Amino acid sequence: MKKKVILDCDPGHDDAIAIFLAAGSDAIDLLAITTVSGNARIEYTTRNALVACELAELDDVPVAAGASEPLVREQVISVDIHGTSGMDGPDVRPPKKQAIEHHAVDYLIDTIHREKEKVTLVATGPLTNVAQAIKKDRSIVEKLEEIVIMGGGSFGNKTPAAEFNIYVDAEAAKVVFESGAKLTMVGLDLTHQALAQDREIVAIENIDGEVATFTVELLKFFRSTYLDVFEIDGGPIHDACCIAYCINPEVFTTKHLHVDIEVKAEHTYGMTVIDYHHVLEKEPNAHVAMELNQDIFWDMLYSSLRNLNK
Amino acid sequence: MKKKVILDCDPGHDDAIAIFLAAGSDAIDLLAITTVSGNARIEYTTRNALVACELAELDDVPVAAGASEPLVREQVISVDIHGTSGMDGPDVRPPKKQAIEHHAVDYLIDTIHREKEKVTLVATGPLTNVAQAIKKDRSIVEKLEEIVIMGGGSFGNKTPAAEFNIYVDAEAAKVVFESGAKLTMVGLDLTHQALAQDREIVAIENIDGEVATFTVELLKFFRSTYLDVFEIDGGPIHDACCIAYCINPEVFTTKHLHVDIEVKAEHTYGMTVIDYHHVLEKEPNAHVAMELNQDIFWDMLYSSLRNLNK
Amino acid sequence: MKKKVILDCDPGHDDAIAIFLAAGSDAIDLLAITTVSGNARIEYTTRNALVACELAELDDVPVAAGASEPLVREQVISVDIHGTSGMDGPDVRPPKKQAIEHHAVDYLIDTIHREKEKVTLVATGPLTNVAQAIKKDRSIVEKLEEIVIMGGGSFGNKTPAAEFNIYVDAEAAKVVFESGAKLTMVGLDLTHQALAQDREIVAIENIDGEVATFTVELLKFFRSTYLDVFEIDGGPIHDACCIAYCINPEVFTTKHLHVDIEVKAEHTYGMTVIDYHHVLEKEPNAHVAMELNQDIFWDMLYSSLRNLNK
Amino acid sequence: MKKKVILDCDPGHDDAIAIFLAAGSDAIDLLAITTVSGNARIEYTTRNALVACELAELDDVPVAAGASEPLVREQVISVDIHGTSGMDGPDVRPPKKQAIEHHAVDYLIDTIHREKEKVTLVATGPLTNVAQAIKKDRSIVEKLEEIVIMGGGSFGNKTPAAEFNIYVDAEAAKVVFESGAKLTMVGLDLTHQALAQDREIVAIENIDGEVATFTVELLKFFRSTYLDVFEIDGGPIHDACCIAYCINPEVFTTKHLHVDIEVKAEHTYGMTVIDYHHVLEKEPNAHVAMELNQDIFWDMLYSSLRNLNK
Ligand SMILES: [Ca+2]
Ligand SMILES: [Ca+2]
Ligand SMILES: [Ca+2]
Ligand SMILES: [Ca+2]
Repeated sequence: MKKKVILDCDPGHDDAIAIFLAAGSDAIDLLAITTVSGNARIEYTTRNALVACELAELDDVPVAAGASEPLVREQVISVDIHGTSGMDGPDVRPPKKQAIEHHAVDYLIDTIHREKEKVTLVATGPLTNVAQAIKKDRSIVEKLEEIVIMGGGSFGNKTPAAEFNIYVDAEAAKVVFESGAKLTMVGLDLTHQALAQDREIVAIENIDGEVATFTVELLKFFRSTYLDVFEIDGGPIHDACCIAYCINPEVFTTKHLHVDIEVKAEHTYGMTVIDYHHVLEKEPNAHVAMELNQDIFWDMLYSSLRNLNK
Repeated sequence: MKKKVILDCDPGHDDAIAIFLAAGSDAIDLLAITTVSGNARIEYTTRNALVACELAELDDVPVAAGASEPLVREQVISVDIHGTSGMDGPDVRPPKKQAIEHHAVDYLIDTIHREKEKVTLVATGPLTNVAQAIKKDRSIVEKLEEIVIMGGGSFGNKTPAAEFNIYVDAEAAKVVFESGAKLTMVGLDLTHQALAQDREIVAIENIDGEVATFTVELLKFFRSTYLDVFEIDGGPIHDACCIAYCINPEVFTTKHLHVDIEVKAEHTYGMTVIDYHHVLEKEPNAHVAMELNQDIFWDMLYSSLRNLNK
Repeated sequence: MKKKVILDCDPGHDDAIAIFLAAGSDAIDLLAITTVSGNARIEYTTRNALVACELAELDDVPVAAGASEPLVREQVISVDIHGTSGMDGPDVRPPKKQAIEHHAVDYLIDTIHREKEKVTLVATGPLTNVAQAIKKDRSIVEKLEEIVIMGGGSFGNKTPAAEFNIYVDAEAAKVVFESGAKLTMVGLDLTHQALAQDREIVAIENIDGEVATFTVELLKFFRSTYLDVFEIDGGPIHDACCIAYCINPEVFTTKHLHVDIEVKAEHTYGMTVIDYHHVLEKEPNAHVAMELNQDIFWDMLYSSLRNLNK
Repeated sequence: MKKKVILDCDPGHDDAIAIFLAAGSDAIDLLAITTVSGNARIEYTTRNALVACELAELDDVPVAAGASEPLVREQVISVDIHGTSGMDGPDVRPPKKQAIEHHAVDYLIDTIHREKEKVTLVATGPLTNVAQAIKKDRSIVEKLEEIVIMGGGSFGNKTPAAEFNIYVDAEAAKVVFESGAKLTMVGLDLTHQALAQDREIVAIENIDGEVATFTVELLKFFRSTYLDVFEIDGGPIHDACCIAYCINPEVFTTKHLHVDIEVKAEHTYGMTVIDYHHVLEKEPNAHVAMELNQDIFWDMLYSSLRNLNK
């Protein structure tokens, strides 16, 4: 049976690849895509989601636009990594596909309640929509199989202590991490094991079809900004790791740990404080991704990209 | 011309009296009432708003229920002051009037945009709905005449530093105070000048009609909890002061000052930090109510209560 | 029997007047004066203490210089109120009297232990020396009759929330307020009842002697800066209120309350959070000065100034 | 020419080994040892320093006791790792050697000024003494060659975010890291490369003499608590790494980075926030130790222990 998945995202190069990975997999029934501001302003992330859907021929998957600003703080976007459009690199035509009228938060709540089976919510942008949905209707928590979050880690990329998605709306992250929902946290420690370097980019270049070509262009741009900004040789395909886990949870190992979200600090706002050694003796609230099986991961991605050319 | 007013409230004894004051005044065109959790859970504050509307024969005024929890933190309610129902004291029959289907936040946005004239938004509960509306559609700020807020002050009632409405959702207050909207802040310094003591309660007892009788019962309960909890002789009719200002701005003086909302502190979370002497040299962002003209205030209230018996 | 008093101060106009008040009183045995940076740099506050001693003929009272910086934060001084010298106004000759070799913190500890009777420590500057003494030798707490502190209040003068002495070293204040010592807190609510206006300045002008003349010059300068900076008509003789209390505790009423020192906030660093209504249900830790008997206060000061001319 | 070194420490198993490493090296002229509370109360850490000196025949090295409590917060000690005595494991006889009369802070200042050459201050406990010395006499900063600090890291051992030495007095760490002194920071990332496991313990068992035997007993106890508390196989000889660097700076590589000390947070108090990728664009203030040359390190230690048996 396919896993019922909603993807809340802010495409974003790696969000787009996450969409392709889901679209090309038999294991996933993608119920909806909701968008949030993050890598770019909400207009761009919504457009980019529509573009990715169109490329992947996800004609029946509704796209609903959501929060244009974080819960409390001012908007922060990520021009240095993703460009102004949030998905710089490939040439992008204006999509024919349109977002639905519903607001992402309402559509999340409605979709979760509508399904008989429990739904897996994958969140690959700031957690604003997810937090608002929980705050608006806490009963969704019981209807969720789990929330798979790309965010956080034991080090940061936006500040020395904070990863971008959590930093952009740490208050929202706090709401989600304290919600009681089952959480799988896919942080930078994991996603930096999913680096697209020469070998992987060449492998995708050898796949036929428009989606693979588009993916190569995304990866080349992304790789170049990671080299410029972080001096990292390879673009980490953060968000796709969450979808990979939905397809096959054996793609990475996890540890069940307590994670606090720091929102009051002077220097560590937006940090996910992970208690690896249980020194706080608090109840675990997140399954923290530890080690990626790179073979499984890349094979999955190649397979999805090939499927999208059928 | 009547002033277009939306009341966002959490009845609450003094919220109910604010509704009566508005209902009985010729100066106010009450466009809608929206509710928020605060003095009691959202189910109660919505029911109480409906009860107050029914008593005041506000048949055409839609009531829309809103946030059941603050933006980020956990819900706090105010049983010690308002009782479990949020409006303990009078016998309350279940209202026939029903809330509309819309969520308060959406209805706020729609109503503000629908009106040709600028709308005055009066907020007499925690600022959760107002903050969400601003975050969801920042263009409403320009369509607002002003936001009249019951909240804050140079001293607290929920903690030594924080007034209840701001304390319950200080993050929301921060959003509103930093929004750039014109704000009039009616804090405890002002509302503790609007104490219902023997003289005022007797005056209302001498007014005929169900609403006046109901008001007397509200005031007697409210007065008794203020005596028990704060050792204050008299119940401060906080929220009605905001409506009084809409009817006649001369009911109190104001100073244009800078107000910061403290959300990071150990001991002063939810404090409105009012810079009375401009020592911070920041741009003023709130017209802070200073001195109440008690004669104008009480005469207005008596007059409204008399009008509601016609 | 005379009260054994150590004065830890940062003269400062009102600190100097506190010295004169003590010097001219039969009720006080001034064991030592220790100095701290605050109103001016330590070199100035020490010089000013020596000048005041010399004027008041306190030849046998040792003066020991102390902390040149707060415990943790950077130094803040108060040029706008006290001038660069900390005691601008009167012409000041370099004093012949010299500070002793000991550091204030060590001298405080030694003096407290040396006395058979319990000692009253009056602190009229930032609490750096006092906190360091407690941290260095916690056994002094039991040897202190009480610590009488000029600092804090329900409003601020350095920021909207914080009084100068506490703001300059809130970490030190936290140490002192949590030390378990008996504390009497003389905050701005009290000291703004001790305003030197025309009537009081004229009264002192009518007293003969160098000290009275010097005091008039101090008061005139101080009064003018208060008018400029705070638009307050009159100079509050803050620090002298503490000495007045040592001479006659009936000079003001007090309430035994819990006071927290805020050190983590964004907008309220250095605030004394006073729980007037016991809403926190914490153990009281300070006797907070409430109402000044102005007749007793001014008569005391006039009497001391007259005595110093004998 | 020998390097002039003062060691400020809180022995502590690894502090004691640091003392032995220094004592047995020709490269170091140990001017003084000062003690601070940390791994144990000040009485114990001072006793333990005296014991270690006596064993190592450092008869001419004065030991001065210092701070018994952190600058601001309450004392925290480390019973689970070091035992009640701070140096549990070996049998310890009461030392004949006595601490000098001077307080560590004063002795630090005096010693630094007394030397013609610049002095290297090695701090292997909480930074209370060092911060107080800087605050008391900021001119020592220019007389210091550098401060070599055992503390901090990109992960914690006392909390998920904070290493013990920094956590115990983060305010002191803030003072030191913002002092402008040249700093070399030897954090957990480095010291966890200096694990005493079977191979190393056996090597030391093969060295003759009382000090080597004592060291073996220290290492065995330390190793067992690290296994119990952290499930780490091997005791990290944290403090000795600092002395090793004084003997031969090539023992580890460093990066010149900006490090902030978090003192305001809810979950990350005492964290050293290290900006490895210069994302904050702040001036570097610490040379952060990166990679240990284990061969150099262990050979140094073996050599010193052999020398102490001559
Ligand atoms: Ca993303
Ligand atoms: Ca209300
Ligand atoms: Ca003073
Ligand atoms: Ca140590």
